[in-house]
Amino acid sequence: MDKLIRLKEILEKNRAYQHAMTILSWDLETEAPVNAALSISKTLGALFELSYLTLVNDEVRDIVYGVDINTLNEIDKKLILNLRKNIFDKMSKIPVDVYSKYSELGTMSTQKWGEAKRTNNLEIYAPYLEEVIKYNKDFIKYRGYEGHPYNLLLSDYENELTVEIVDEFFKNIKDELTPFIKEVITKKREELKDIKARFLSKPYPIDKQKELSKEISEILKYDYNSGVIKESEHPFTTSTSNKDVRITTHYYENDPLSAIYSTIHETGHALYEQQISDEYQDNFLGNGVSMGIHESQSRIFENMFCKNDSFTKVIYDLLDKYFGVEITLDEFKLLLNEVNTSLIRVEADELTYPIHVMIRYELEKEIFSDLEKMENAEEIAKKWADKYEEYLGVSPKTYSEGILQDVHWSQGSFGYFSSYALGSAYSAQIYKAMEKDVDINKDLADSNFENINNWLKEKIHKFGSFKDPKDVILNATGEEFNSKYYVDYLKNKFAKIYGVEVK
Amino acid sequence: MDKLIRLKEILEKNRAYQHAMTILSWDLETEAPVNAALSISKTLGALFELSYLTLVNDEVRDIVYGVDINTLNEIDKKLILNLRKNIFDKMSKIPVDVYSKYSELGTMSTQKWGEAKRTNNLEIYAPYLEEVIKYNKDFIKYRGYEGHPYNLLLSDYENELTVEIVDEFFKNIKDELTPFIKEVITKKREELKDIKARFLSKPYPIDKQKELSKEISEILKYDYNSGVIKESEHPFTTSTSNKDVRITTHYYENDPLSAIYSTIHETGHALYEQQISDEYQDNFLGNGVSMGIHESQSRIFENMFCKNDSFTKVIYDLLDKYFGVEITLDEFKLLLNEVNTSLIRVEADELTYPIHVMIRYELEKEIFSDLEKMENAEEIAKKWADKYEEYLGVSPKTYSEGILQDVHWSQGSFGYFSSYALGSAYSAQIYKAMEKDVDINKDLADSNFENINNWLKEKIHKFGSFKDPKDVILNATGEEFNSKYYVDYLKNKFAKIYGVEVK
Repeated sequence: MDKLIRLKEILEKNRAYQHAMTILSWDLETEAPVNAALSISKTLGALFELSYLTLVNDEVRDIVYGVDINTLNEIDKKLILNLRKNIFDKMSKIPVDVYSKYSELGTMSTQKWGEAKRTNNLEIYAPYLEEVIKYNKDFIKYRGYEGHPYNLLLSDYENELTVEIVDEFFKNIKDELTPFIKEVITKKREELKDIKARFLSKPYPIDKQKELSKEISEILKYDYNSGVIKESEHPFTTSTSNKDVRITTHYYENDPLSAIYSTIHETGHALYEQQISDEYQDNFLGNGVSMGIHESQSRIFENMFCKNDSFTKVIYDLLDKYFGVEITLDEFKLLLNEVNTSLIRVEADELTYPIHVMIRYELEKEIFSDLEKMENAEEIAKKWADKYEEYLGVSPKTYSEGILQDVHWSQGSFGYFSSYALGSAYSAQIYKAMEKDVDINKDLADSNFENINNWLKEKIHKFGSFKDPKDVILNATGEEFNSKYYVDYLKNKFAKIYGVEVK
Repeated sequence: MDKLIRLKEILEKNRAYQHAMTILSWDLETEAPVNAALSISKTLGALFELSYLTLVNDEVRDIVYGVDINTLNEIDKKLILNLRKNIFDKMSKIPVDVYSKYSELGTMSTQKWGEAKRTNNLEIYAPYLEEVIKYNKDFIKYRGYEGHPYNLLLSDYENELTVEIVDEFFKNIKDELTPFIKEVITKKREELKDIKARFLSKPYPIDKQKELSKEISEILKYDYNSGVIKESEHPFTTSTSNKDVRITTHYYENDPLSAIYSTIHETGHALYEQQISDEYQDNFLGNGVSMGIHESQSRIFENMFCKNDSFTKVIYDLLDKYFGVEITLDEFKLLLNEVNTSLIRVEADELTYPIHVMIRYELEKEIFSDLEKMENAEEIAKKWADKYEEYLGVSPKTYSEGILQDVHWSQGSFGYFSSYALGSAYSAQIYKAMEKDVDINKDLADSNFENINNWLKEKIHKFGSFKDPKDVILNATGEEFNSKYYVDYLKNKFAKIYGVEVK
């Protein structure tokens, strides 16, 4: 037991270093002066190395593998298993100097990506992307893998996820949704064009948008005693404990819906972190368990709760109170659920969204099927365009609206995208289960999130990283993950809105 | 030379840890949610310990004392001497666990101080203050001292400062200024009352105050590419390098002058840090050299430049542009220079300010004259009241407007206050020297800070910590520090404004 106490002392030090890194990154994204970027990246590098060396060493290894996990309580057992997996099966396999070089490359690569996207110039970024891919292929070799090499990357974001599972998921999406989308996309075009013209015809002052975002996040019961809302280029949530969970949004003067729905999305992430129980928090299991589960919480708020007919009226009334609205409630509902074959993932609607993710998944899977091949960015961009043509019938005219649109690859986040679609699918299954216990429509119409949040807390949030994603879904819904809920939900919802028959 | 490279590697790591601590503290003061305070204080504690252990160890000691400083260039020589003084003559004398306990005590003590000040309850804070004093007495014993024990604390904030120097300085202030203040304080009372009534009769919207503060700091040439302005309870400046120097202010809806002049004050601090040369920055000498020199830069902007007749008109016109002003320019000038025997240091005018500092100096000097005595907070509060009665003819009716008004003692910052008065005195001497090279009045009337800032950069700012305070003053003014400039400046200025004869 003394060894466990010693281990927790070490983990507490590491918590402090991670805390500092999180706040420095938050600072960099939200307010640091431009000239500070270089020194912040150096400091992050130094703290990363420190954190690595604090965890990856013989003392920690001896404790983590020396302990008989059957003698431990459930929390400590889970903690030890997590450390074996995340530190010794993963981190420790890669030498610290390789990690350091990769971290430097990542900073440069992200910078070059930004420049490339702004100037629509793939060439200046291509060597960085190719190098980042090469590092990730090497990491897979360092770490070893079972089955498809890409499994390793998938499971970094969603424990036990494999290409078999994701292939089946997307096959279902593709078979069921692509013909359906092709039909929906032909309906109500003129009506939507007219609604948009009226809704977007005036400015929405940013000061008022800020107040409105705050009011909505408060309705959702985001706790400002343990949170901050701020602005950044791309909205995100970051957390150092359940007592400090911060969100950002981005305001556009001509479109209030962007900030409203990104605030709701991030509030969903934040509520998950804020509602993790102190018991897990204090035992280093105090974060959301996976990207997929996290995304299920952001999307259940963004789409299932806040684009729900009942709550749509709440948003409509708020918009009217703050700005005055020139369209009817029914028109507003249609506008919120406009389906569009856009080229840009982050602007995609709920129905076409998984197709965007599927395209990235297919590309990544192919890239990581051959660990020896040196990739060519130009070739990937070509395949990207072909897939958009095939699945959505549109083709990027520039690199910026194609391969350059997302930041993820520049940072080496391969395997990440799938969790976005998976999260949406989880959320549909979770919603269905929640309906058995909570009168969701009534509560939403009353702007009452108490029952909803309590249900999520008891079934999902409070466990932090204690339960694996699979168990979270099983525990919350009473059955294993099943993508049928998602497909059914999307088809029923959009069939009704667009007057299309569900086959 | 290899050893010097190794030393700089270690110092670079330490820079990273200090960087993280600075940003975490900044975050805590400006935006962290209330529930995050405990975890931030734990993280700061862990980083402090890390920083201590990075510097205080045999490897660093061997390098710092093993090197023959006569073989080094001037910059490296200064670096080594600083490390000997700040790390091994100071920090290393105190065991890390004592420091850690003291650091925890400081967090609690500051919290209790805040509560005590709000509720005017000395009792709940007294044991913390007494304990903090005891620690500081012990630190003096750990470290050893020459002459008066308090010298050690004074020299922590201003190298080579001693009670002899400060005694003489304040004797001059007391002899020359106390009778003068007693005379000034009787003049123009009714006129000032009337001006204030009119000026403060309306609200000054905070949004507009923010814009105005930004505009003024830009006139002063604060560089926003290397800076941020934000709000906090008490205004301050913090810096992690010349590329990242941040300031805060505090807005009061009924008094725009508070934010304007605190912004100017902090901009003075910030310009000092922003104008330090990269050469010193890259060699760990890249901060302002002392509190006294720092305060000279904030006060030369706040008082000498920005309450100067020429620039007063600029401020007046800006106020009129933003809010409309109900008083004349001459009335505004008088208002800016109102003399008041206030009980509160931070609200004091330029003329009575040094008396407030002197009172704290005299109390601290007495406290630290006997290192064995356990102090009693109640007794100190009594002496505090007596001194205000003696020097300013006013006596605090509550603890909150007496001993509880300043945060410094709760944090153990004994020896700090003197640098405030010393800084003001430096600024008068520096201004006099600058007048020989720069047409200050003309430049101020034109809102042109280019020549002023360049002069300060070349004479003072660029050197960072490379030159000692004494040498900074000698280099900038051509003579040693002489408090006569300060006394003459104050008497001449206020004699003219209040129609009093200078004796």
